[in-house]
Amino acid sequence: MQQHRIEADYLLETPDDPERTAATIAGEQSSGTFVRVPGETPELLERAAARVVKLEVIDRFTGQRALPTAHPTPDNERLTRARLTLSWPLATMGPSLPNLMATVAGNLFELKQVSGLRLLDIRLPEPFAAAYTGPKFGVEGTRRLAGVHGRPLIGTIIKPSVGFSAEDTATLVARLCEAGIDFIKDDELQADGPNCPFDDRVAAVMREINRCADRTGKKPMYAFNLTGDLDEMKRRHDLLLKQGATCLMASLNSVGLVGMIELAKFSQLPIHAHRNGWGYLSRHPLLGWSFAAWSKFWRLAGADHMHVNGLANKFSEPDESVIESARSCMEPMFATRPCTVMPVFSSGQGVAQVPGTYAAVNTTDLIVTAGGGILAHPGGPGAGVSALREAWDAALQGVPQADYARTHPALQTALGATA
Amino acid sequence: MQQHRIEADYLLETPDDPERTAATIAGEQSSGTFVRVPGETPELLERAAARVVKLEVIDRFTGQRALPTAHPTPDNERLTRARLTLSWPLATMGPSLPNLMATVAGNLFELKQVSGLRLLDIRLPEPFAAAYTGPKFGVEGTRRLAGVHGRPLIGTIIKPSVGFSAEDTATLVARLCEAGIDFIKDDELQADGPNCPFDDRVAAVMREINRCADRTGKKPMYAFNLTGDLDEMKRRHDLLLKQGATCLMASLNSVGLVGMIELAKFSQLPIHAHRNGWGYLSRHPLLGWSFAAWSKFWRLAGADHMHVNGLANKFSEPDESVIESARSCMEPMFATRPCTVMPVFSSGQGVAQVPGTYAAVNTTDLIVTAGGGILAHPGGPGAGVSALREAWDAALQGVPQADYARTHPALQTALGATA
Repeated sequence: MQQHRIEADYLLETPDDPERTAATIAGEQSSGTFVRVPGETPELLERAAARVVKLEVIDRFTGQRALPTAHPTPDNERLTRARLTLSWPLATMGPSLPNLMATVAGNLFELKQVSGLRLLDIRLPEPFAAAYTGPKFGVEGTRRLAGVHGRPLIGTIIKPSVGFSAEDTATLVARLCEAGIDFIKDDELQADGPNCPFDDRVAAVMREINRCADRTGKKPMYAFNLTGDLDEMKRRHDLLLKQGATCLMASLNSVGLVGMIELAKFSQLPIHAHRNGWGYLSRHPLLGWSFAAWSKFWRLAGADHMHVNGLANKFSEPDESVIESARSCMEPMFATRPCTVMPVFSSGQGVAQVPGTYAAVNTTDLIVTAGGGILAHPGGPGAGVSALREAWDAALQGVPQADYARTHPALQTALGATA
Repeated sequence: MQQHRIEADYLLETPDDPERTAATIAGEQSSGTFVRVPGETPELLERAAARVVKLEVIDRFTGQRALPTAHPTPDNERLTRARLTLSWPLATMGPSLPNLMATVAGNLFELKQVSGLRLLDIRLPEPFAAAYTGPKFGVEGTRRLAGVHGRPLIGTIIKPSVGFSAEDTATLVARLCEAGIDFIKDDELQADGPNCPFDDRVAAVMREINRCADRTGKKPMYAFNLTGDLDEMKRRHDLLLKQGATCLMASLNSVGLVGMIELAKFSQLPIHAHRNGWGYLSRHPLLGWSFAAWSKFWRLAGADHMHVNGLANKFSEPDESVIESARSCMEPMFATRPCTVMPVFSSGQGVAQVPGTYAAVNTTDLIVTAGGGILAHPGGPGAGVSALREAWDAALQGVPQADYARTHPALQTALGATA
């Protein structure tokens, strides 16, 4: 373990000398403090200190700092942006995800010399691969349980997000089942409130799902949002198993890393990982986390599906960022254990985004969810599902959407409603 | 429970109409989606929708958006900043901290109409007070275990942060004990790595701490960083109890909310809550979290001590923000259950900050930690502790520090070293 090292890449902006700033970050995040203390010997530094592996200046300019800081301003404010790679010996922390987080994303974002810092990526040595659950289902397990092959899972979200009773939810689910939906998820705001208790919702919804499976031989996958305290999640998981459910959902920023690690340990179902709150972690381009770095924590902890937003989404995220996130889900984390997960597209998705999405990711190993895009189809949810299926059929066959729509009325109507 | 409501205050910036933006946020975070869907009836909205309680415009100006967004730009970019208060019925989620987080801090930061959004504060209805552990020790329990009354706990952090063996750590602890230290903490980078295993460190350190307690009748409080997976934290906690330790430490962003809730359930020791990573949650003034809002989650979950940075700190945080955070720790959360916690001052702290800190918070119910400020004192750690104690004695007696230093050489030396 002595030789193994962890690496992290950052985007850095500083009004100070970039090399001095890089050394300060490395010191702060390993042996150092602000002043030299007794005991910080050369041998200790060799054994325990973080190293600046690479510092590549990408821009020098005169302008405004990305983030306010009390660092003194020279007369002519010169700022440097750089890509910085640090490495740490695994021996100071061991293969522990919570302690990794404190190391690569701890007290470094607020350093005075830093007017911008974003964690771009991390690379973990092999001992991490064996230390955590990882995705138990991933793409293959999800496809097997959902009975969908050769195309994306077409999914939707129960809307209104909150306010439906358990029976209201089941009524909508029954319609979606009839429409041939592959995947349905609870909204992240719906977990176990008095207005729609989890147990009642599971009973009512699974009655419809199991009925559909009995009738058609295909069981739509429903991701029940079991986010809550640990004992609640365990109890809800066991209920899902008993009722024949095939997926559970958890809000990552709500359960946190230890909550997710524990959930993954006992879960016998695919974990649909919702990233709500992602905006506060990522919205500023020079602060916080890139999805590629952040999602590796959850992938190794045990997520099977990761939300990545969608093209032309209703949020502020640009398409390039969405595509980069989706692709990162499919990049292996370790040679021995890829920990690849299924990206989930959502947010204002409809037929319009299908050709671009397929062109960008070049795979069908996706879950594509549309809330309004299915439920607000003028022909009803059934036509909404058909339209999305038809849009993917067209994309997979390489037929322009408008041409395909001429013989597929649900798609035609969806295109008309979008235009 | 039907009548109880949750409230959250935000600082909002928008290039769009502020009332429309407020309504969009309320809709997105309750019943709504981007388009009207069947089932979103007036009755459902009355029962389940979030309400805009208050929208107070504080600035209208022409300028640059705080955060980039794809929202269309009018020719003359007019931006509005406003304070927004939303409320939600408790009945849609119940008194669940994880689901509260998905509601007040979920998918709202990334809305296209939002060019800045920061959660300023939250107010929770009484059912939350009974649902979680809250601080089991707080100020009183901490003072009782540390044997310190009428003044702040003077503390330090083991430095170098990583690299010491268990015995190296104990050697330093022995010197700090001799110097009369009240409180010592592990660095957040030091948990259970192969270079300094937790069990070895506890055994070596508690040997010195217990020896000191036997000799002097006062047991310095040592916050052992047990951050890790849940079973590891449980095992480490039990070891701490067995060895007579009086405090444990956990990194909040590493364990996450469910990890903290579980830890607090079984912990029989005060929980020293480290906020490393706070920079990525808070560094931009128009994004993320204020400490007052964020800390309420952890206070109710069970933290006893919360880090608040320090005056004239080595990070980028301004003094006003530090003071506001410290004061928020002492504001009651519920009429029946204050959940007040002990603020922990740190980061480049020394004798210089003492008068300002006392003037700002007007209480001695604090933990004041100095790493370099104690360990790098020219007279050694013992003189470092004495200097800080003397600085607080002077502040409490209302004597100017320079005057007091004339008869207190350790303080005199510290002032000289600072100047």
